[in-house]
Amino acid sequence: MNTIHFTRGIPADESYPLEQLASCAEAVMRGPNALETMKYGTGFGFTPLREILAAQNNVKLENVIVGNGSLGFIDLMGVSVLQAGDTVFVESPTYDRVLTLFRRHGIKVVSIPLEPDGINLEALTKALESHKPKIVYLIADFQNPSGATMSLTKRQAVVELAAKHDFLILEDAPYRPLRYRGTQIASLFDLDPERVMQMSSYTKQISPGVRVGSLVGPARPLAQLAKAANDTYISAAFLGQATVAEFLQRGLLEPQLESLRNLYRPRLEAVIAALETHLPNARFIKPDGGFFLSVTLPEGSSVSSLMERGKDVNLTFTDGRGFFPVASDGERFLRLPFCALTPEELSEGIKRLSSIV
Amino acid sequence: MNTIHFTRGIPADESYPLEQLASCAEAVMRGPNALETMKYGTGFGFTPLREILAAQNNVKLENVIVGNGSLGFIDLMGVSVLQAGDTVFVESPTYDRVLTLFRRHGIKVVSIPLEPDGINLEALTKALESHKPKIVYLIADFQNPSGATMSLTKRQAVVELAAKHDFLILEDAPYRPLRYRGTQIASLFDLDPERVMQMSSYTKQISPGVRVGSLVGPARPLAQLAKAANDTYISAAFLGQATVAEFLQRGLLEPQLESLRNLYRPRLEAVIAALETHLPNARFIKPDGGFFLSVTLPEGSSVSSLMERGKDVNLTFTDGRGFFPVASDGERFLRLPFCALTPEELSEGIKRLSSIV
Repeated sequence: MNTIHFTRGIPADESYPLEQLASCAEAVMRGPNALETMKYGTGFGFTPLREILAAQNNVKLENVIVGNGSLGFIDLMGVSVLQAGDTVFVESPTYDRVLTLFRRHGIKVVSIPLEPDGINLEALTKALESHKPKIVYLIADFQNPSGATMSLTKRQAVVELAAKHDFLILEDAPYRPLRYRGTQIASLFDLDPERVMQMSSYTKQISPGVRVGSLVGPARPLAQLAKAANDTYISAAFLGQATVAEFLQRGLLEPQLESLRNLYRPRLEAVIAALETHLPNARFIKPDGGFFLSVTLPEGSSVSSLMERGKDVNLTFTDGRGFFPVASDGERFLRLPFCALTPEELSEGIKRLSSIV
Repeated sequence: MNTIHFTRGIPADESYPLEQLASCAEAVMRGPNALETMKYGTGFGFTPLREILAAQNNVKLENVIVGNGSLGFIDLMGVSVLQAGDTVFVESPTYDRVLTLFRRHGIKVVSIPLEPDGINLEALTKALESHKPKIVYLIADFQNPSGATMSLTKRQAVVELAAKHDFLILEDAPYRPLRYRGTQIASLFDLDPERVMQMSSYTKQISPGVRVGSLVGPARPLAQLAKAANDTYISAAFLGQATVAEFLQRGLLEPQLESLRNLYRPRLEAVIAALETHLPNARFIKPDGGFFLSVTLPEGSSVSSLMERGKDVNLTFTDGRGFFPVASDGERFLRLPFCALTPEELSEGIKRLSSIV
């Protein structure tokens, strides 16, 4: 009996466009941008890729920065836009690695409860009475770890609050193009490009190996980030950035995204069906895209004891407490990444899960 | 009259092995390691490249970490091996970007004067009476910015002091394979692999665009670094690391280094000859390799005023004060990077320099 891992949110091995990447990487090094790819650049990243993203987002070049993955931007943010002692608001739960990085730099993290349709607005409004956040960090689409998507009404409200209380929104949107059902909602960046920095990454769309993240937003914080980036690594890994630029220029991204949606949609359907069959009383959020679905276990149970019992049935999980700024809030929180497992594995995994809950 | 830049230590454009890199990148993505290149890995870096470096250095896999350039390791060091308030010793002058990064993380920097044959041992010994450094940061070969190389006697003495006073040595060795004359001296790492972390990079050897740095050293600090790396970017840019691994496996590095030495040697000779001709009274260190030569201007002159006068003759410099932990010590310090200029440009540049000194 193979172990089934409900741990990390990784893309499926079979999703990587290896042949196309081989051709793009080769073309870059034999093409007109080869020298620019190999030389030092600025902290803003590889210019031809920034130009493509600026055109896509209808912004100027100064509004686009590309770096070594989006997580790296959070780290740089902590020593540039933010300073030790500054306050950041996050959803609870939120992406665990972001908490680690904000805390590394002495940033004060205030958590606002998340609901199935996004951040709790009352709690957010109330928190704004006693705190002055410099940044509110939100994953509006198919949130990691919950799978929740923020409603349009809430997005509009949050953007209004940003203007009223003068904070920046950091919209983390790596899953946004991976919608498997329903229709796309305007992004926070669409609603207010003056106050929203939208971060994305090609990790989930192409592969982690190219290590390319991007941030589109107001020029001032981006210039601060680019300065910190230059101080940290002079310029980022341009071979990956140039390969991604070539991939985009050849029009390969949209077909790649379509094939990802077709690969992952049945997996989302399989995990939902399995939960409805094997754990009919489970409380879970039905995501419309992305990598994660989350279950809240019944009162009295805990993920830590589930992790123990999982060993008996060859099932592994991530401790839910890591996703919560106040760890004890995550005692009953179970994240189920579904993209790197086949429908059969997902069905079998949930069956095993039901045997130990 | 073209401007001649004596500013940044960048490789010559004509030095990049573009065709070979194209072939290596393509082969990686079509070869047996393609999937490993594209997936998430650990904070230690791409395993096949670590294996090559472990064999080269006769150490175990746990003694090798590869990341996004060596400067990135300094940044990670500041939040792992080192903590705010810890003390680091550096040479004065030293690599300016390292000072920026240590200071970013609240590391206390103590500077020890540098002499043409390496760190001043008396000053080092004396400083050890009143300070307890966790790390002593040294560039033993063809130092940036001075061009100085540490003598074997001094290397042995520093290693003994490390054992006696229980500190780690961080040996930054990106220029080490680029010796243009004389014979190689045992590295600090060669002398004590238990206490020395030797950092290197393929930036100067292959190109900045691959963005690959490496660190070989004791397992314990490396594990701390790898944890911080994983927290920061999960895994580094593997496309570049895999391309470098392929480059090494094909035996392309040694011929590449030989061609770099043949390209840069006449440039070093040209800048020395020009100084001897046009500035016979200048006090400068004659480097045996690397990217930099440095001049100490006569009493009463300063690089900042030279930068002003340089505009009249189309000559640019870097402010020497940035290389000194105590900035005013660098008032008369002029760094001359010579690799990215032709012998003719170097000769012309020094002639212009003599006209404004």
